[in-house]
Amino acid sequence: MSIHSVLVTGSSRGIGFGLVQKFLESDKVGLVIAASRPSATSELLTIKNKKLHLVTLDVTDDDSIVKAVEQVDQIVGQKGLTILVNNAGILQGYGFTDKPNRDVVNQTFDTNITSPMMMAQYFYPLLKRAADSQPGNTFSSSRAAIVNISSILGSIQLAQPSDNGIKKLLDYSVSKAGVNMVSRILSKDLEKDGIMCTAVHPGWIQTRMGGEHAPITPED
Amino acid sequence: MSIHSVLVTGSSRGIGFGLVQKFLESDKVGLVIAASRPSATSELLTIKNKKLHLVTLDVTDDDSIVKAVEQVDQIVGQKGLTILVNNAGILQGYGFTDKPNRDVVNQTFDTNITSPMMMAQYFYPLLKRAADSQPGNTFSSSRAAIVNISSILGSIQLAQPSDNGIKKLLDYSVSKAGVNMVSRILSKDLEKDGIMCTAVHPGWIQTRMGGEHAPITPED
Repeated sequence: MSIHSVLVTGSSRGIGFGLVQKFLESDKVGLVIAASRPSATSELLTIKNKKLHLVTLDVTDDDSIVKAVEQVDQIVGQKGLTILVNNAGILQGYGFTDKPNRDVVNQTFDTNITSPMMMAQYFYPLLKRAADSQPGNTFSSSRAAIVNISSILGSIQLAQPSDNGIKKLLDYSVSKAGVNMVSRILSKDLEKDGIMCTAVHPGWIQTRMGGEHAPITPED
Repeated sequence: MSIHSVLVTGSSRGIGFGLVQKFLESDKVGLVIAASRPSATSELLTIKNKKLHLVTLDVTDDDSIVKAVEQVDQIVGQKGLTILVNNAGILQGYGFTDKPNRDVVNQTFDTNITSPMMMAQYFYPLLKRAADSQPGNTFSSSRAAIVNISSILGSIQLAQPSDNGIKKLLDYSVSKAGVNMVSRILSKDLEKDGIMCTAVHPGWIQTRMGGEHAPITPED
């Protein structure tokens, strides 16, 4: 089993940066495309590795996504993009008892739900190309994949009486329930194309978002 | 058991209009506040009933919500608002194979997820007043309620291999999963205030949204 190419969004720090490092270390992964906003490439620039390709991408900006698709098309070539990791996301800390702020909530939904959906739509041709170019079974019957980084806070079933709203995780938890549903629907819709779609909960991790009290480091 | 007051959003037609009619018929309900956009009050104007109060409200417009809260405050008085029914919603028919359109998707999320959240926040003082003014157990331990009209299409667990995305229900289904999560979190957060929050799936109903093939009429 080998993976021709993988793209990680929000790769300049935290989980995204950790994933890029692991993919670079793996013999099974060919090309690693680290996508991040123009302002946030500094740590990535310190890595010297021929497998690594940096791409400027703001997942909330359609023009930026279209340009990134063109660049990634050149990088991955005829074998397409094997794995898209939608990792970029925001946690704004909005709670029910805060002054109502529609713009903050909508920005969370745009970044954490709509953007992974747009990324899947815009990158679909490259993912389809990867699936079509593979006779084998890289992911059981799937030959390409979309991985949405979600959170256990997005589980409707597991939601605890933990005052998520008052603890300022209302918009974030709702956005992760939303992207879980995106993943669920696309997993059905794209099955016939050999493209898997899944949402993963990486755990509570020591990142700028997770804070210093988290029990897991990005390296883990 | 009696319900002092109930407010229904999106009440000019469909499920909202049907709910207003049923609440007007019920002896248990005192004041019925039918909220709808300014352009959509025509059918409501034909109803002659002293229990009925019409309020202009665009749930996607914060200024409009603030004005509606002031009006409803005057209507309901010291006994507050007993039940808020967040019924207003849109189905835009967006699918994965459509040309990517971030604005359409974000508009669905703003109307179907963010707006019920904003409504709950802005109307919280009137709901709290209703809960505080009732010694009894109108809804078991709850004395006021927020009811979000959702859809079975929003159930992550029940999502079927029915190509929701390709069948142009992608944004709608995701928005209903989102509002289910809002309901779940607020049901925990507001329990201590005696305010219940729930999401209900009314079925597939013959409305302008549901179309003529739906098996249930709003009167049912």
